[in-house]
Amino acid sequence: MNEFEIIQHYFQKSIVGARGLILGPGDDAAILAPSAKARVVCVDTLNENIHFPSGALAADIGYKSLAVNLSDIAAMGATPQFALLALSIPNADEKWVSEFARGFFELADQYQVLLIGGDLTRGPLSISVTLIGEAEKNYLTRSGAKVGDKIYVTGKLGAAGLALQYIKENKPLDDYLQQRFYRPKPRVKEGLQLAQCVSSCIDISDGLLGDLSHILQQSQVAARLDLEKIPFDGSLSLALNAGEDYELCFTVAPENVAQLPCAAICIGEIVAGDAKIMDENGQPLEIQSFQHF
Amino acid sequence: MNEFEIIQHYFQKSIVGARGLILGPGDDAAILAPSAKARVVCVDTLNENIHFPSGALAADIGYKSLAVNLSDIAAMGATPQFALLALSIPNADEKWVSEFARGFFELADQYQVLLIGGDLTRGPLSISVTLIGEAEKNYLTRSGAKVGDKIYVTGKLGAAGLALQYIKENKPLDDYLQQRFYRPKPRVKEGLQLAQCVSSCIDISDGLLGDLSHILQQSQVAARLDLEKIPFDGSLSLALNAGEDYELCFTVAPENVAQLPCAAICIGEIVAGDAKIMDENGQPLEIQSFQHF
Repeated sequence: MNEFEIIQHYFQKSIVGARGLILGPGDDAAILAPSAKARVVCVDTLNENIHFPSGALAADIGYKSLAVNLSDIAAMGATPQFALLALSIPNADEKWVSEFARGFFELADQYQVLLIGGDLTRGPLSISVTLIGEAEKNYLTRSGAKVGDKIYVTGKLGAAGLALQYIKENKPLDDYLQQRFYRPKPRVKEGLQLAQCVSSCIDISDGLLGDLSHILQQSQVAARLDLEKIPFDGSLSLALNAGEDYELCFTVAPENVAQLPCAAICIGEIVAGDAKIMDENGQPLEIQSFQHF
Repeated sequence: MNEFEIIQHYFQKSIVGARGLILGPGDDAAILAPSAKARVVCVDTLNENIHFPSGALAADIGYKSLAVNLSDIAAMGATPQFALLALSIPNADEKWVSEFARGFFELADQYQVLLIGGDLTRGPLSISVTLIGEAEKNYLTRSGAKVGDKIYVTGKLGAAGLALQYIKENKPLDDYLQQRFYRPKPRVKEGLQLAQCVSSCIDISDGLLGDLSHILQQSQVAARLDLEKIPFDGSLSLALNAGEDYELCFTVAPENVAQLPCAAICIGEIVAGDAKIMDENGQPLEIQSFQHF
């Protein structure tokens, strides 16, 4: 199969007449109908041997390449709608492509995300997904945290980091770690619910401390964490500094805590200061977050 | 510099208050204001050693990675507005990144395209640009060609293919070939003008025959080309089958030919049939277009 046949066979699902879509895949560009709502747009890349090991299951890679983007849309409190897929593969291995597409669409279908375009090229294995969604007026950003707000996370942290450690040591992953690393559950539903009542939000892709510090920088505040309240798998250190768990970290004003619409764990409080993160004794916590360079 | 510092320093131009933009780079996603017009969206990838040779100038790579996407928007007869950049680089070479950004923004500024987000990761050199634009109601597609329509191209074909041949043979490129290969001029202005009066359009990225055949397939017609009218650099064979010249190929009803708003060369006619391309004597022309697999 050549490039065009692969695209037609595995990626060009019939989406004629889909809501909000004027022109789907198969032209030079896709066309979205005008919308009364704001559009949310993001892109995230996964590279072999950087974000996943060589030999990872194609279906898992397809799934995760969409999941990490759904997580970004979740952090904005928005609804995902359309995806574009830029896929570079070393050769036209049909079995691999078919499995990749299966994993991708498994998650896309779950969130009613339509694949409306993309590019398939030869090259070292790399996947960039662009995701487009729509936001209500109460979308979430990183810049709204205020002194006195409580800091929450939506779930346990550290499992993806532990999985990465196992992978590097050639240890097998049990089902739980496999799932947490390759098939993170994007918190889309939670993001939409939280948009009603929280002051800032981010998804934890680079580690709790690193990602929380983005909220702090953009909100011009500091944070004090209750380390013993942080829910973790593996170790507290992984929970603080390993990334890729894709839980949401958000802040909420004390008077809104009672209305929190989804399960979440309070791990600290916003305080005055310049983007530093301290423990309960006021000792600074050092960010050793996952950085690509 | 780490990932975040590189992004802030080289890619995060201040675009606060830009028209149509609610939230720019620096959050989990960018947010576009609602628009009464349809949105056009596409993505294209350039990989080292596939789309450009190792050692190509960073500024040229930055320029071309946006140009190929502008060309897709041009082929839709639409106006480009916003870009997202997914950039994978093997290491954080500041000089390289600075030059890449210079080339990218040189072209972006020319078309008033705003970089509103992206992802910077470690990996083999690869660039995926997502481009978002807006379309009027008379946007162009590949599916409107009708029997009797004339077939046009907006300029000479083959130079990029000739450049590629030279690069493979380690021959130096003169200024003309360098320009045509690395800095193709996207026909955005022409696309917008043509949207008034043509029946179908595509940009020539994979070669005239291959790209014209997409129009034919989607319009369910065939074509007869006047080979001696095809404007070429190098050889007719390169003009027919080498890609990356990024001229537009379009069809226009005979009664609209007199109104053509931009310079273009008539190279043939749409005839009845099943997506075949023939020469002036009715002999079939074989597509040997540039395919990645």
